[in-house]
Amino acid sequence: MLTRATIERVVAAALAEDAPWGDLTSETLLPAEASARAELVAREPGVFSGGDVFAAAFALTDPAIEVELHVADGARFDVGDVLATVEGPARAVLTAERVALNFAQRMSGIATLTARYVAEVAHTGARIADTRKTTPGLRAFERHAVVCGGGHNHRFSLSDAVMAKDNHLAVLTAAGLSVTQALQGTIARLPHTTHVEVEVDRIDQIEAVLAAGIGTIMLDNFSLEDLRRGVEQVAGRAMVDASGGVTLDTVRAIAETGVDVISVGALTHAARGIDLGLDMHVGMPDAR
Amino acid sequence: MLTRATIERVVAAALAEDAPWGDLTSETLLPAEASARAELVAREPGVFSGGDVFAAAFALTDPAIEVELHVADGARFDVGDVLATVEGPARAVLTAERVALNFAQRMSGIATLTARYVAEVAHTGARIADTRKTTPGLRAFERHAVVCGGGHNHRFSLSDAVMAKDNHLAVLTAAGLSVTQALQGTIARLPHTTHVEVEVDRIDQIEAVLAAGIGTIMLDNFSLEDLRRGVEQVAGRAMVDASGGVTLDTVRAIAETGVDVISVGALTHAARGIDLGLDMHVGMPDAR
Amino acid sequence: MLTRATIERVVAAALAEDAPWGDLTSETLLPAEASARAELVAREPGVFSGGDVFAAAFALTDPAIEVELHVADGARFDVGDVLATVEGPARAVLTAERVALNFAQRMSGIATLTARYVAEVAHTGARIADTRKTTPGLRAFERHAVVCGGGHNHRFSLSDAVMAKDNHLAVLTAAGLSVTQALQGTIARLPHTTHVEVEVDRIDQIEAVLAAGIGTIMLDNFSLEDLRRGVEQVAGRAMVDASGGVTLDTVRAIAETGVDVISVGALTHAARGIDLGLDMHVGMPDAR
Amino acid sequence: MLTRATIERVVAAALAEDAPWGDLTSETLLPAEASARAELVAREPGVFSGGDVFAAAFALTDPAIEVELHVADGARFDVGDVLATVEGPARAVLTAERVALNFAQRMSGIATLTARYVAEVAHTGARIADTRKTTPGLRAFERHAVVCGGGHNHRFSLSDAVMAKDNHLAVLTAAGLSVTQALQGTIARLPHTTHVEVEVDRIDQIEAVLAAGIGTIMLDNFSLEDLRRGVEQVAGRAMVDASGGVTLDTVRAIAETGVDVISVGALTHAARGIDLGLDMHVGMPDAR
Amino acid sequence: MLTRATIERVVAAALAEDAPWGDLTSETLLPAEASARAELVAREPGVFSGGDVFAAAFALTDPAIEVELHVADGARFDVGDVLATVEGPARAVLTAERVALNFAQRMSGIATLTARYVAEVAHTGARIADTRKTTPGLRAFERHAVVCGGGHNHRFSLSDAVMAKDNHLAVLTAAGLSVTQALQGTIARLPHTTHVEVEVDRIDQIEAVLAAGIGTIMLDNFSLEDLRRGVEQVAGRAMVDASGGVTLDTVRAIAETGVDVISVGALTHAARGIDLGLDMHVGMPDAR
Amino acid sequence: MLTRATIERVVAAALAEDAPWGDLTSETLLPAEASARAELVAREPGVFSGGDVFAAAFALTDPAIEVELHVADGARFDVGDVLATVEGPARAVLTAERVALNFAQRMSGIATLTARYVAEVAHTGARIADTRKTTPGLRAFERHAVVCGGGHNHRFSLSDAVMAKDNHLAVLTAAGLSVTQALQGTIARLPHTTHVEVEVDRIDQIEAVLAAGIGTIMLDNFSLEDLRRGVEQVAGRAMVDASGGVTLDTVRAIAETGVDVISVGALTHAARGIDLGLDMHVGMPDAR
Repeated sequence: MLTRATIERVVAAALAEDAPWGDLTSETLLPAEASARAELVAREPGVFSGGDVFAAAFALTDPAIEVELHVADGARFDVGDVLATVEGPARAVLTAERVALNFAQRMSGIATLTARYVAEVAHTGARIADTRKTTPGLRAFERHAVVCGGGHNHRFSLSDAVMAKDNHLAVLTAAGLSVTQALQGTIARLPHTTHVEVEVDRIDQIEAVLAAGIGTIMLDNFSLEDLRRGVEQVAGRAMVDASGGVTLDTVRAIAETGVDVISVGALTHAARGIDLGLDMHVGMPDAR
Repeated sequence: MLTRATIERVVAAALAEDAPWGDLTSETLLPAEASARAELVAREPGVFSGGDVFAAAFALTDPAIEVELHVADGARFDVGDVLATVEGPARAVLTAERVALNFAQRMSGIATLTARYVAEVAHTGARIADTRKTTPGLRAFERHAVVCGGGHNHRFSLSDAVMAKDNHLAVLTAAGLSVTQALQGTIARLPHTTHVEVEVDRIDQIEAVLAAGIGTIMLDNFSLEDLRRGVEQVAGRAMVDASGGVTLDTVRAIAETGVDVISVGALTHAARGIDLGLDMHVGMPDAR
Repeated sequence: MLTRATIERVVAAALAEDAPWGDLTSETLLPAEASARAELVAREPGVFSGGDVFAAAFALTDPAIEVELHVADGARFDVGDVLATVEGPARAVLTAERVALNFAQRMSGIATLTARYVAEVAHTGARIADTRKTTPGLRAFERHAVVCGGGHNHRFSLSDAVMAKDNHLAVLTAAGLSVTQALQGTIARLPHTTHVEVEVDRIDQIEAVLAAGIGTIMLDNFSLEDLRRGVEQVAGRAMVDASGGVTLDTVRAIAETGVDVISVGALTHAARGIDLGLDMHVGMPDAR
Repeated sequence: MLTRATIERVVAAALAEDAPWGDLTSETLLPAEASARAELVAREPGVFSGGDVFAAAFALTDPAIEVELHVADGARFDVGDVLATVEGPARAVLTAERVALNFAQRMSGIATLTARYVAEVAHTGARIADTRKTTPGLRAFERHAVVCGGGHNHRFSLSDAVMAKDNHLAVLTAAGLSVTQALQGTIARLPHTTHVEVEVDRIDQIEAVLAAGIGTIMLDNFSLEDLRRGVEQVAGRAMVDASGGVTLDTVRAIAETGVDVISVGALTHAARGIDLGLDMHVGMPDAR
Repeated sequence: MLTRATIERVVAAALAEDAPWGDLTSETLLPAEASARAELVAREPGVFSGGDVFAAAFALTDPAIEVELHVADGARFDVGDVLATVEGPARAVLTAERVALNFAQRMSGIATLTARYVAEVAHTGARIADTRKTTPGLRAFERHAVVCGGGHNHRFSLSDAVMAKDNHLAVLTAAGLSVTQALQGTIARLPHTTHVEVEVDRIDQIEAVLAAGIGTIMLDNFSLEDLRRGVEQVAGRAMVDASGGVTLDTVRAIAETGVDVISVGALTHAARGIDLGLDMHVGMPDAR
Repeated sequence: MLTRATIERVVAAALAEDAPWGDLTSETLLPAEASARAELVAREPGVFSGGDVFAAAFALTDPAIEVELHVADGARFDVGDVLATVEGPARAVLTAERVALNFAQRMSGIATLTARYVAEVAHTGARIADTRKTTPGLRAFERHAVVCGGGHNHRFSLSDAVMAKDNHLAVLTAAGLSVTQALQGTIARLPHTTHVEVEVDRIDQIEAVLAAGIGTIMLDNFSLEDLRRGVEQVAGRAMVDASGGVTLDTVRAIAETGVDVISVGALTHAARGIDLGLDMHVGMPDAR
């Protein structure tokens, strides 16, 4: 999902941001000849994501650093597990540490939160999907993390699926256009591979939208009762995507209404970074 | 704090990420001639940040869009306040909407959370400071938002202040070096404008560190009682920076121990986006 | 489809490529004070595309140049039509001329060729679609041109729709996997908005593929007779996309076999630039 | 001709364009552990170009892929020849395939077409040269391909040689300037290393231009008869460059008029990609 | 010579380098409402260069700043002359000041030094040319400044003219190749627009080089006497370019030996920035 | 101080600037099979800086080139010392030569000049510091070179320390503000890690500035006598930084006035490149 080219472009920019003129602390405080062996250790359990990104932060700082990953993206880990080993000049290892941890913590945090949502809806027919509420510049990384956690990606951008929302429908109304006909025109103009999803706020909007032959209807901010009625009314004519007010407490009940997809912006915009630490073992050349 | 060049570089990349091939929905669903007047409305109270960034998202999508800001960065707003007005082709307005909102919500969220921390410590001598736990690529934006909220920036990067942490001290120990002497060497090598801060985990580390003549000592994860004893022991020989376990519930008590700075990673990594909405008013050319 | 940010990024790079140290000819040969009024004139009929790109080439060379577009993207034009007017310092106008023409000719060429294919299949149920055989770095521009010509875009990239081809199926076979089951697994793992298209080379592959519940089947390099049999066998269970050996001579017959989509790599990789010229009218300040 | 830095910059951008969020097909359909050995096989004869570019597409996708080139840039190949071998994870190999092929096909196509033109003029004194009608962003690659095919590069950009065309001469006329004197002024102002070429449309323009002491005169759109008369009139006082209406059918006759250079825009803007295929041999780890 | 796109790219990078997180001084010290009118004043006489670059530094910091240039690139100025006026918010004006001055001083310094060399050789047949010893990343700017000073550009890069130096000739010798024949092969392979210059260290190398039919011979580190003999021996068969040991004290004598070109690396690598200052006139909104 | 990512970004751009279309000389003149072993030899004594940058220029041109550094950054070298060995294809070695030398000469020149200043002030309490008068785009490299020469960096940019200058104070005066109070406000608003330095032109400005509690006072263009009086008056309440009119002839006397820091713009803007040469040893494959 993440090419070497993408990883290097983003990580190089992050390193430049964090050390535009180098790392004053390491360079002035640590002996140049000190070497470090550092272990990436889990301080809490979770699901791993971002191994290649973590490794790239060290390699782009100093090619003399070697990183070995012990856990694959998507694997679960427990407190105390050693996820990776880093070995090289102590100065450079500490220069890259925060950027490397930032990515691994953020991505593993998203994977872990996603896995919790996914577990909640186990054995229902619903899938957990992310949204476009990602961090500007990091969408490819955060979407990869959602997949590592067992979630599904929703459309990646404005360019790969249609999602007609309230503001779009408002324009149609103002222009005196029929929603059904406008959507049919859209379908006729789109790539044949493009999926059309339409967001509705009320049950009485469903029929006009379905009449256009769309792929998914999003029921936005519906009560559980209305979700059930909505699913019933759609009756398989489209996939049903629920959004709004989804939390770990409510997601199971929502899934049990029979919806196909539950869109959870929180996966990316409210995930807490997982607590990962870098334990250092320092070596010095012999004093002889 | 944010130059036009910086804003345009980051926002252009965010737009490219969100619409690599354009906005399929707007382009296929909305009439080309529809115009929109949209108002950025606050759905909850807060502190504003990111006005110029919000405006740039529209301008970089279509120069035909005009944005007027009604609220300055740093100003408080209430539910229902209109923070900005956007006017232009409906398609382009909707294409840029999410990126524009993303930045304004994220930045105003940080400003608003910061303002809550700042209010908590009112009339103590402590200031609220951010950390390097910012989003890769967005540090300039998030740091600006902290200032909008009345907080203070901590060092910006590894390049503008020294912060010696446990892993640095561990290297010194492994190398058989005295912490005091090593820090004195650092000070001698650094730019004379560079501030030196050292993190300690225990009170018994304080004297060796202060003996080097540093500027700030960070007491990391100290209990309130230990913070008080630490402040007493430092006795004005350096500024005292408290970190670890800081929440809105604990920050007042921490401030009252007499520390000078309270570093709160949560300002940037745990801020929730403020709920801002774009209310659309659509116009069509006369049918005559 | 093309944001200002995208246009400026690509056009600025093209100008830098064509004049890394400026335009020696204009700068050393032409009087600095000469102004030029140039008209973009069609030397052959066609369909226009790339107006904003054409204009940007001049603006990014010298903001003193003004460009007025007389024809919208997607409009037909005839020999002799004036498509745009350019006015400004003669040196700068001539510096930007080739880059501006390059984009307008290439994009209008694609739009024009697309329109010919579209006209050929008029009143059949088939649509003309492009492919990923676009110029590296210019896909957004070339895809926009296809739409200007009345064609449809196919998937934009590897990231927005599945297209399983012979090499993918070969991997499945080598791994001893069932095509049907593998595709079902794919569908379960994909975003719910992702369309699945599978390419087959022989009619006897159709059933295994359809059994997975895919969206489109591509019949690659089928004879007209086999296309007809394929459409019959698919029987509406999926869309049918024909590819291979499509020319202006064969496309009508292919469309009449009942396929839904005809993928034509030639739209982008074999389009000839439309002959557009820039007619100059030069002015000098009065000699008084 | 192509540095590693140039190749990596352009190929990384092409990969990002083609897989902004990864390759959905490979990632969801193929077993992660499948490895592939692929051979780049010629489906038609031609002249090879772009070996390093082809290899970089794989390396920038996944450094675990190894590419071995069996044919040097500029070498002829026949149907069925294996030009390169690619070995690595099946997913990544298929992700990079199209970008790698795109470059190799385009570049080898240009080299092959160039070689045909070069063969046509064998044993005349004329050389075949390219023009600035290259693809925006890819000029370095396309120009390298022309050289691989035995052709010569013309000036690379507006910055490395003068080429005064009809529009430049029109400005001089409008300004009431003598062409001869204006060109002499140009020569005096230019770098002493800069070659001056001037395009004329009619034989009666030749003397005024030659009088300035230029290096090459371009006879644009001259009949064969006029070319012969032009060459005679120039009489060795400058090189003669013929352009306009050059095809594989006409190029020999043009060469035989005695011109020194024949500029053929078609080399780059009308070259057809050579048909190259990637034949896959898939391996799975033993099932034991 | 410098397109808007080139100027903006380089200046934006310089601003990002100089103020990655903004200008702490202006932002914390100056009232937000203070406006400034600043004049760019010459503190010593010279030749101006870089007006558009100077202006761009302000515009890219804050579009609210207006810059008016009073002197054209290439014009002479005297002590006390006002070269430009800058007007806008005091904070932003001071943020951009150093970057704007840096470019104007450096470029005007090169133009001024060049003008001194050019004046020294007045009424000889020699021209003053720059070299490739420019600042990485700024060659287009520094070369433009040389032209502003009345100098000539030498080849711009490795890509637009041949310059065979001692190390190249050493390779030929090691390979057992004849210099004359190797250069003839080069000329046959090059674009017909490419000028060939060859550097020799001794008079006895001249004939072998001239025999190849090259355009310019560079006499490197020749004594005045040897230069004269060299010019005599070349006898108009090629241009003669003198390099090595050229200073303001020696350049006249070198020119009088009859050489055509004198290459002076010092123009760009040893030019001192011209002393230009920004005189501020500050205004505050009325206190009423 | 210089990460691999920073080095590669800047060096790749320099190579692209110097060889946009390759190195015509090497490619057309040298046999493809010639290999070269080149030694980087000092033609004058100095202090080395830029080893990794030198190496990167070759690696980014052709990964087949191997570079071995024999001298560490910061080490002194003498005439004739071999600083590095380069081995690889002769064409590529010569293509990269100038860019590699440019960086090594410039950086070693700065290191060497710095070392001379540092030696002059030996055994005084003063340190030698650089300024922001660096080359746009190369500040990280030039600052690293200053450290290699034993100097100290001053603030890196506008973002990491306050430096209030005459123009800032002029704004305060125009606004009717007290300098002391304004500076106190600045200190209250700044990060606690930010050092405040204020420049004064006259002794009578010192008290108002010191009253604000700043860290460093810069005495700008003071006579030796005034420097002594200034140091006396400051009396240890702040560090004292001397600037203006500092040369190798005056620096010792300035240091002996008791100032703590001497800021020398000349370190970076007036350093002469050190004379380093690349001695080639060429090899050809056996002629058998």
